[in-house]
Amino acid sequence: MNRPTPLSGFPEWLPAQRIVEQQVLDSIRRTFELHGFASIETRAVEPLDQLLRKGEIDKEVYLLRRLQAAEGEAEADAGPNTLGLHFDLTVPFARYVLENSGHLEFPFRRYQIQKVWRGERPQEGRYREFTQADVDIVDRDTLAFHYEIELPIVIGETLAALPIPPARIRVNNRKLAEGFYRGVGADDTAAVLRAVDKLDKIGPDAVRELLVTGAGLSPAAAAACLDLAGISSSDASFADQVKALGVQEPLLDEGLDELVRVVEGVEAVVPGLVVADLRIARGLDYYTGTVYETVITGHEELGSVGGGGRYDALASDGRTTYPGVGISIGVSRILGRLLGSGALAASRSVPTCVLVAVSDEAARGQANAVATALRSRGIPSEVSPSAAKFGKQIRHADRRGIPFVWFIGDGSDDGEGDSVKDIRSGDQLPASAENWTPPESDRWPTVAAPE
Amino acid sequence: MNRPTPLSGFPEWLPAQRIVEQQVLDSIRRTFELHGFASIETRAVEPLDQLLRKGEIDKEVYLLRRLQAAEGEAEADAGPNTLGLHFDLTVPFARYVLENSGHLEFPFRRYQIQKVWRGERPQEGRYREFTQADVDIVDRDTLAFHYEIELPIVIGETLAALPIPPARIRVNNRKLAEGFYRGVGADDTAAVLRAVDKLDKIGPDAVRELLVTGAGLSPAAAAACLDLAGISSSDASFADQVKALGVQEPLLDEGLDELVRVVEGVEAVVPGLVVADLRIARGLDYYTGTVYETVITGHEELGSVGGGGRYDALASDGRTTYPGVGISIGVSRILGRLLGSGALAASRSVPTCVLVAVSDEAARGQANAVATALRSRGIPSEVSPSAAKFGKQIRHADRRGIPFVWFIGDGSDDGEGDSVKDIRSGDQLPASAENWTPPESDRWPTVAAPE
Repeated sequence: MNRPTPLSGFPEWLPAQRIVEQQVLDSIRRTFELHGFASIETRAVEPLDQLLRKGEIDKEVYLLRRLQAAEGEAEADAGPNTLGLHFDLTVPFARYVLENSGHLEFPFRRYQIQKVWRGERPQEGRYREFTQADVDIVDRDTLAFHYEIELPIVIGETLAALPIPPARIRVNNRKLAEGFYRGVGADDTAAVLRAVDKLDKIGPDAVRELLVTGAGLSPAAAAACLDLAGISSSDASFADQVKALGVQEPLLDEGLDELVRVVEGVEAVVPGLVVADLRIARGLDYYTGTVYETVITGHEELGSVGGGGRYDALASDGRTTYPGVGISIGVSRILGRLLGSGALAASRSVPTCVLVAVSDEAARGQANAVATALRSRGIPSEVSPSAAKFGKQIRHADRRGIPFVWFIGDGSDDGEGDSVKDIRSGDQLPASAENWTPPESDRWPTVAAPE
Repeated sequence: MNRPTPLSGFPEWLPAQRIVEQQVLDSIRRTFELHGFASIETRAVEPLDQLLRKGEIDKEVYLLRRLQAAEGEAEADAGPNTLGLHFDLTVPFARYVLENSGHLEFPFRRYQIQKVWRGERPQEGRYREFTQADVDIVDRDTLAFHYEIELPIVIGETLAALPIPPARIRVNNRKLAEGFYRGVGADDTAAVLRAVDKLDKIGPDAVRELLVTGAGLSPAAAAACLDLAGISSSDASFADQVKALGVQEPLLDEGLDELVRVVEGVEAVVPGLVVADLRIARGLDYYTGTVYETVITGHEELGSVGGGGRYDALASDGRTTYPGVGISIGVSRILGRLLGSGALAASRSVPTCVLVAVSDEAARGQANAVATALRSRGIPSEVSPSAAKFGKQIRHADRRGIPFVWFIGDGSDDGEGDSVKDIRSGDQLPASAENWTPPESDRWPTVAAPE
């Protein structure tokens, strides 16, 4: 067969890039677990009727059918039970909570790091297969407000532990927006939200047009909505700016109060992390309170690398409702940018710290024994593929970034013992496989932070 | 919506079970990396023409199409570019090697832990979505034989590090089998192999019938093939038994020599791990040398929990060929059995080691600060969801298996300081968030080994 070519939208990493990804995922996992979030994984597939509950997303779903499915088999027809690949981790999580509610303790703190799939047109930062890392807290019947303050702190800490530039979390509140829209006389507040959500894409004039002709607002009301979207502050002062617009509505006041509490609550713990930004809408329609969007400083044009919010009715079996709040980190979007630009790199392309040289094939068993002794003390080691000249074996290590090459002595009492060579400096020192230890910074590959 | 029900063949774990899975996967990864295998992940999808290269598997493939795909769009027609979910990790790996050969160093040692999908009828140990953990070594043009000895040692060490009963690796050799079949006069050696592969399912009489009527063997030749399949030994003595059958064929001798080297080479390093078992066939047709099948002692009827072999021609772009050898561990099959039977269990259902109690909501900030201090020293901690009575907060911890509850003192000079209660023993001792440390065995959840 011919050499295969990459599939657009389905990124794959080379081994050294994968080491960066692994360390990023390990770090995210560690922070989540330190905060007491339990891991779950859900299956890759959901029935189509589950996937379409959110609306607006249907065109992005990949459906499955078996190659040898019988003619007319239900799953070939896009019926409600047809399986599709999940496009996010929130919808599967809501289904998991309902399905297992009898076996879970509430409030339930979970994290989930998995691939998701969307049949969208690929472009920079937008893939057809990508990895998300989600944290959510759900409770039964009611969910305490303090979790809306806790979650951005967790995400801020998670991103701060990664070798990437600082993150900023933009926060808004659905009650605030909906209350304001009602207050200026909007009948279809969802239509107003959808129009405002397009602000970055189509600009204020086109949004104004949409608000008047599409959402039926008066020109003055449309102007007020645009004014609202222009407000932002990293402290509680946004509230005064909103009040200065003169709109009266109890839901608006409730939303303002919540947003002030989130901004002040996070600011008190992690100064500079959050900013109230009243143009943040989040497209998905299940949010009912605080909404979040995360950008990386200096990479704002990449768009959101993490979003989420509070949802009150996503998981309900008719009798019991499980309100929740969650934020998702777009791991692939972050890595795609930082690996692509060379801002993150691994110190070597293999886990191996020591290559044990082989003087001739008859001595391979001895070399294996040395590698086994090193591994038993947690030092990643492999044995040279062949008994080539030592110069070639050293080049084998060098091309992979393996820092040390081990040479076995002749074993006689007065002869040479084992030695280990740091191939970066060329220093070669006597060593025993029973007690030699590399510098900690060389034991495993490390990942370099950007400038 | 109603409570959803599980999808047959798509297993999902509860949080405590997921902790077991995570620790199993972490352990597998660590052993692989200690042996110098580099991680890669491949996309979940491959073009259909790639997936069908192996033959015999086509009915198991899940094909994808976008919900909103235009009528007549190619991907709805199962053409060669239609995307399907991968059903193993070997075929995607061979494609990855060809695609990236210019960026890889050979011999290339890689491991890959990912989900795979097969549209088969689910039953115990057989899923539609499951996790595999593969190690392979590929080289360019030629592959040293010693890797066929190394790989079962790596897999044996990997499985020995898991809290499961001992594994046994059954080994055979395709050259041995094919040489023998040629030697008894078979024209279609693949048909003979397929018939012998059914031995466990349909029994010797039915296989004999298949060999005579299907593969065209004489009754004497069929009997010899069944005799061959009956041979096994944990040392090199199988070779004498084979020779006693009196079949002459150079390829048989080559295969016998290789199998002796594998059995003796592994036995010298890990006594009792391998057994030559001449009925092992492995269904997939790309193997060309040693083949492996792994069973867990006491769970033999579960079938193979790890298989693989040497393949010489799987990855070739017409000019260059990349021969390889690999073994895959069926992680889901192992976990399904051991979690299902209760033989493996986690010490708690959450990562949390300490629950910080909250005396009233106004003091939540203080509790957050304690949790932050504990986490900064690597102690997984969360804050109580509400300022309920302390008894209720302790029950909250108890239901999740969280071992410690932290109580904040009143902070006055002569008042009570902080204290921490081990809720298993009831012991409560003064403690400071700046230096208290739990016993190492309590810091993270642990997984109990089976009896």
